[in-house]
Amino acid sequence: MWYTLRLQGGSIDLAQEDASAASRSGGSMSATRQPVEYDEATPEVREIYDDIMATRKTDWINNFWKVLAHDPRTLKRIWSNIKEVMGPGALDPLTKELLYVAVSASNGCRYCIASHGAAARNKGMTDAQYSELLAIVGLANETNRLVTALDVAVDPRFL
Amino acid sequence: MWYTLRLQGGSIDLAQEDASAASRSGGSMSATRQPVEYDEATPEVREIYDDIMATRKTDWINNFWKVLAHDPRTLKRIWSNIKEVMGPGALDPLTKELLYVAVSASNGCRYCIASHGAAARNKGMTDAQYSELLAIVGLANETNRLVTALDVAVDPRFL
Amino acid sequence: MWYTLRLQGGSIDLAQEDASAASRSGGSMSATRQPVEYDEATPEVREIYDDIMATRKTDWINNFWKVLAHDPRTLKRIWSNIKEVMGPGALDPLTKELLYVAVSASNGCRYCIASHGAAARNKGMTDAQYSELLAIVGLANETNRLVTALDVAVDPRFL
Amino acid sequence: MWYTLRLQGGSIDLAQEDASAASRSGGSMSATRQPVEYDEATPEVREIYDDIMATRKTDWINNFWKVLAHDPRTLKRIWSNIKEVMGPGALDPLTKELLYVAVSASNGCRYCIASHGAAARNKGMTDAQYSELLAIVGLANETNRLVTALDVAVDPRFL
Amino acid sequence: MWYTLRLQGGSIDLAQEDASAASRSGGSMSATRQPVEYDEATPEVREIYDDIMATRKTDWINNFWKVLAHDPRTLKRIWSNIKEVMGPGALDPLTKELLYVAVSASNGCRYCIASHGAAARNKGMTDAQYSELLAIVGLANETNRLVTALDVAVDPRFL
Amino acid sequence: MWYTLRLQGGSIDLAQEDASAASRSGGSMSATRQPVEYDEATPEVREIYDDIMATRKTDWINNFWKVLAHDPRTLKRIWSNIKEVMGPGALDPLTKELLYVAVSASNGCRYCIASHGAAARNKGMTDAQYSELLAIVGLANETNRLVTALDVAVDPRFL
Repeated sequence: MWYTLRLQGGSIDLAQEDASAASRSGGSMSATRQPVEYDEATPEVREIYDDIMATRKTDWINNFWKVLAHDPRTLKRIWSNIKEVMGPGALDPLTKELLYVAVSASNGCRYCIASHGAAARNKGMTDAQYSELLAIVGLANETNRLVTALDVAVDPRFL
Repeated sequence: MWYTLRLQGGSIDLAQEDASAASRSGGSMSATRQPVEYDEATPEVREIYDDIMATRKTDWINNFWKVLAHDPRTLKRIWSNIKEVMGPGALDPLTKELLYVAVSASNGCRYCIASHGAAARNKGMTDAQYSELLAIVGLANETNRLVTALDVAVDPRFL
Repeated sequence: MWYTLRLQGGSIDLAQEDASAASRSGGSMSATRQPVEYDEATPEVREIYDDIMATRKTDWINNFWKVLAHDPRTLKRIWSNIKEVMGPGALDPLTKELLYVAVSASNGCRYCIASHGAAARNKGMTDAQYSELLAIVGLANETNRLVTALDVAVDPRFL
Repeated sequence: MWYTLRLQGGSIDLAQEDASAASRSGGSMSATRQPVEYDEATPEVREIYDDIMATRKTDWINNFWKVLAHDPRTLKRIWSNIKEVMGPGALDPLTKELLYVAVSASNGCRYCIASHGAAARNKGMTDAQYSELLAIVGLANETNRLVTALDVAVDPRFL
Repeated sequence: MWYTLRLQGGSIDLAQEDASAASRSGGSMSATRQPVEYDEATPEVREIYDDIMATRKTDWINNFWKVLAHDPRTLKRIWSNIKEVMGPGALDPLTKELLYVAVSASNGCRYCIASHGAAARNKGMTDAQYSELLAIVGLANETNRLVTALDVAVDPRFL
Repeated sequence: MWYTLRLQGGSIDLAQEDASAASRSGGSMSATRQPVEYDEATPEVREIYDDIMATRKTDWINNFWKVLAHDPRTLKRIWSNIKEVMGPGALDPLTKELLYVAVSASNGCRYCIASHGAAARNKGMTDAQYSELLAIVGLANETNRLVTALDVAVDPRFL
């Protein structure tokens, strides 16, 4: 959990402390929602947590799912999408994670880079591959702007 | 080249005709620049065109480079970047193209999707792989927004 | 379907003609895919088309679904998401469409503005409401940049 | 105010302390500007603060305005825009705030989500409505990319 | 005005023809709105058109304003903003236009690049300057992604 | 360097401490990479650091380069691009920095705003100029969305 330290004079004020308390009691609609731990979860949520852990062969749940758990319908829907899209298919699992990381890096989603970066690493991504991925993300963002700004016509051979 | 047909009454007006004429004569600063064909190119530009064709083992130049050719310094710089970033490395050539297509699709760059999609196809991308790539691009854009809007804290295990 | 007219000399060249022919025969991986009409569709795809028409109480299918139909898994998955998210809930149907239009307008997705704009209109959106929606989209994009650029700290009362 | 803690060895270094001091004295052009409190404000700025509080029937000013106050012309201009666009019209006040939140969530503006989220809450937004709003924002971002990447042609019925 | 040619068999179908007719009669809510010409405009709109032409020392109105004219409040509000922000100030008029073009190029707004590009040209922008502007826009988009993806900490000297 | 304080009960947990240790030893692929200081750098990296300092007539290296240094090829490539694009040309050095800041502000890259903002300040940018730049960035983002959403046709005079 992120804490914002507000220092006024010589004292430290942990502003989010109250927010998290309020959030836990359901009385807040702060943009930040506290993760729902397994022990606190409803049976409906636990069933999804169990499926996530079984599918991923792991024994823990990362914060994205624990935050989505405040809205069990969305938790279930998004997990179902991820399970299908990132499951076995025509692209191998590592390539799928690399693509997820690349889009997340292009969009500047820090959490998504961290979580899918960890997943890619578990599937074998090396430091050198990650560096090349970032270089491609950066360069594509550069040429995407040049192409659009210059309104380049699609070559007939590409159609 | 894109033509905008303006139909007024029963007659067809090809508005861009004049613009392209002006562009060819150097008198316009239209956002759209006409491609510089090999035969019209300066020796400096031809040298880069030659290197592009030799590197890619092909006998033609696509519009992106022919439009950049109005600014030879940028043409040379961008080609040098692409040659290095997309050249041999830790990621295989197909994966590199898939990443380029994914970022371009996420950014909505139609030309870039078409050109790098064609390159990916030449390197073996199948229809099924392209469909999965698009599904990942779409889903990552969805979860990227959910994560950011909910301000999900990065799990310590991901750091 | 979009056609690119390429006019060279006095003749009109319909470059996409071949692409669409190739696409119909499955031999192309053009970024543009031809819509799959009901009569051409597989039973699996027709079942989804039928559900879309029954759910929406209409007798036709718009191009988005007909283009997704090249990839029946994604067609089924996206329709399932739309059906759930845009179905009955805590927000009324018009408000849901307005939110979809607003995000699409902010992202510059012309097709999405047109299709969800039509849906919003069918649910009662007036011209005046659409004008106000666009004004909010524009202004939010302005203040979002000012806030981010100035790195404004979140007020404790908002947490 | 955000503080960056830099921990080197066992000591805590509050790097922003100097920056804020400099900012207060007007000698810095840090991207982060300190809020201008009512008591420190010029009569010109106080007049706008008074109008904000009167219009919103509240007794405090949030940081966005207090940071804009370093540039009174922009403070006045943006407030005038917000007052007009978010004021009475064809859309009800809650719907207007929901649209503002949706665009801000799509753009990833944390402060804007928090401030307009609080405003929406004050106007009656429930937790369930907020969850549905986020689901729409996420899904629209997914389908916007699919539509653009697949270059779907607008159906004549939508034109 | 853009026309979409739909060619089916050997015949040309001008789909937007009907849409524009509907739009002129006020019966459509197509995303595309037809420009309101001076002669058709209400006195309220003409007054703004007159101010635009007087301020810019020109005798015509570009499409952006003519399309906004369907919503006179927004027309007036946006013109008032542009007049103030782009008017005399601490930055010279050419630099202001260059900044507007750069943001528009980064966002991929074709119309905005064309209109503000023309304005910049009128204020003296050369071809070489435009090429350098585009190079900066492209490179900034590249490094912006690298910085965000790598989560680079702000140097204390920059605070 | 950013530290995330995790407070559980009464104790402070500095989660990133381990990550940085791992990163220094090369065993982590955390999204956040620790800056490589001059003394730790390889001769290849030092040579680039020396060129950066000589070109900029300064005696220190900012974090962007020190983080890129984990990937010397990218460090060298990006520096070579920046040196060329931001070097002497048709636009004066201050205007170039203003354009870089404007794009970075539009994209919400906090580090880039801070670093290029500092560079612009060193080249003479005043507070008033920075305020005007931000106003243009904000307004362009507003009108870019209105133009795109309304699908405004480019005036023939702009082509």
